[in-house]
Amino acid sequence: MAYATFEIDGRRRVGVVERSDHAADRLVPLDGLVELGPSTTADVLADTRRLEDEAVGVDEVRLCPVVPNPGKIICIGLNYHEHVGETGRDLPTYPVMFTKFPSALIGPYEDIVAPPETTEIDYEAEMALVIGRPGRRIPREQAHEHILGYTVANDISMRDYQRKTHQWLQGKTWDRSTPIGPYLFTPQEVPDIADACIRTVLDGNVLQEALVSQLIFDIPHLIETISEFTTLLPGDVILTGTPGGVGMKRQPPIFLGDGDRITVEIEGLGSLTNTVRNERV
Amino acid sequence: MAYATFEIDGRRRVGVVERSDHAADRLVPLDGLVELGPSTTADVLADTRRLEDEAVGVDEVRLCPVVPNPGKIICIGLNYHEHVGETGRDLPTYPVMFTKFPSALIGPYEDIVAPPETTEIDYEAEMALVIGRPGRRIPREQAHEHILGYTVANDISMRDYQRKTHQWLQGKTWDRSTPIGPYLFTPQEVPDIADACIRTVLDGNVLQEALVSQLIFDIPHLIETISEFTTLLPGDVILTGTPGGVGMKRQPPIFLGDGDRITVEIEGLGSLTNTVRNERV
Repeated sequence: MAYATFEIDGRRRVGVVERSDHAADRLVPLDGLVELGPSTTADVLADTRRLEDEAVGVDEVRLCPVVPNPGKIICIGLNYHEHVGETGRDLPTYPVMFTKFPSALIGPYEDIVAPPETTEIDYEAEMALVIGRPGRRIPREQAHEHILGYTVANDISMRDYQRKTHQWLQGKTWDRSTPIGPYLFTPQEVPDIADACIRTVLDGNVLQEALVSQLIFDIPHLIETISEFTTLLPGDVILTGTPGGVGMKRQPPIFLGDGDRITVEIEGLGSLTNTVRNERV
Repeated sequence: MAYATFEIDGRRRVGVVERSDHAADRLVPLDGLVELGPSTTADVLADTRRLEDEAVGVDEVRLCPVVPNPGKIICIGLNYHEHVGETGRDLPTYPVMFTKFPSALIGPYEDIVAPPETTEIDYEAEMALVIGRPGRRIPREQAHEHILGYTVANDISMRDYQRKTHQWLQGKTWDRSTPIGPYLFTPQEVPDIADACIRTVLDGNVLQEALVSQLIFDIPHLIETISEFTTLLPGDVILTGTPGGVGMKRQPPIFLGDGDRITVEIEGLGSLTNTVRNERV
């Protein structure tokens, strides 16, 4: 199954996705649910009545960040060998973790806001997962029981701000910078997700490409590590890290600017395409 | 004015504090408010009816984290000269920032949970401020208009985990580690807060002592810096940094263990006293 958070007629809803190869996907609203998030478990999604007669085409709605208001957003840095190599850092022996705030999130096709303060807007293709069952000190063998589903994220990073100190927060959580979506796919829907290809495309050029299986710390390891120090709750989001090929490490560097359209795609999970737009301040 | 979030008979409420020199403070509930947080502005506090006939002594209630569920908790590192000196780091030219999750917070007299995984539990006395009015790109001259009030925090840090990578998250946000409170004091109530003394006491020994005026980046600077990249909202909490004298830099180091009672106090804002208790896992 796949789910989306969307807005229609100014009202926010959760919908089951009915995919189609020959027409736009359709979204069947779930009765009374306003967004995927802290109150969403697999049971809630399975048990909520589908409002078949209120189904709409995905092209008739605004798709929101697939989880608009996560209780926590935990991002993993330096989690693909090629990316660690291009940064010149040592291979991590423990996952490198930082956070974003929910105000950083945007929908899968919304504009990435380019604030005037930065000149170094970079892309980072990432697989994201969403927690669906609470847990603390989750052993890796049980980690899969806590996953509600998977989606796609672009961990947009303002490199000049990221470098201002040794802590990365101020480079990572600019308002309306980080697309996530379009849908949340349950694990049953994407059983081979660990083998999926993840890719960033700009102007027809593939800038990042890797297999999710190349993660240094795999998904069970991340869930085990994070839940050691904090209780994971439904709606929490984990961004699992980005492959090599980021813009700042290219010769010459590639940074995003007004009008650029950047795509991140993961086999089986769909894609994000977002236009960068200068903010009017 | 001062405010508290408390629980009585299993119900959470916000109260105005009526202080007394010769008896326990009294808390006058505000009609319908369940906690200080994202929906709390100065107007809401001023305009809500006081339920005088439901007033209770502070010794009859459980005091909660003064803001139990902040939308954001932003912590500043390396913000007093003496502390920067003891860490051997260069003086920062931009505030060093990291985050905690709300699940890390505990009330002002609750037990600090000592998890079995760490052997290096350290204290950090900090003044905290709470935002009361939304703002983005707030100039320092207007910063004071966005402050709802001030309180006391102990930024408990698991140093062995903090050092696991160059990013500090996993050392800073263990569940039920971080006391904050006891009350939120409005700026009018503590006009000389910048000159207040901040202090940590363990077993009668003063381990940290400084004036808030010794902050490297002062409060208006912090609000200006943070609101450049993210919208500050009511209920957001900023921990402003800790003075010199942290446990890990002492010879020999001082780390907290089961049964230790640690106090953090700030002139005009009261104090936190918490017992460290080993977690039963």
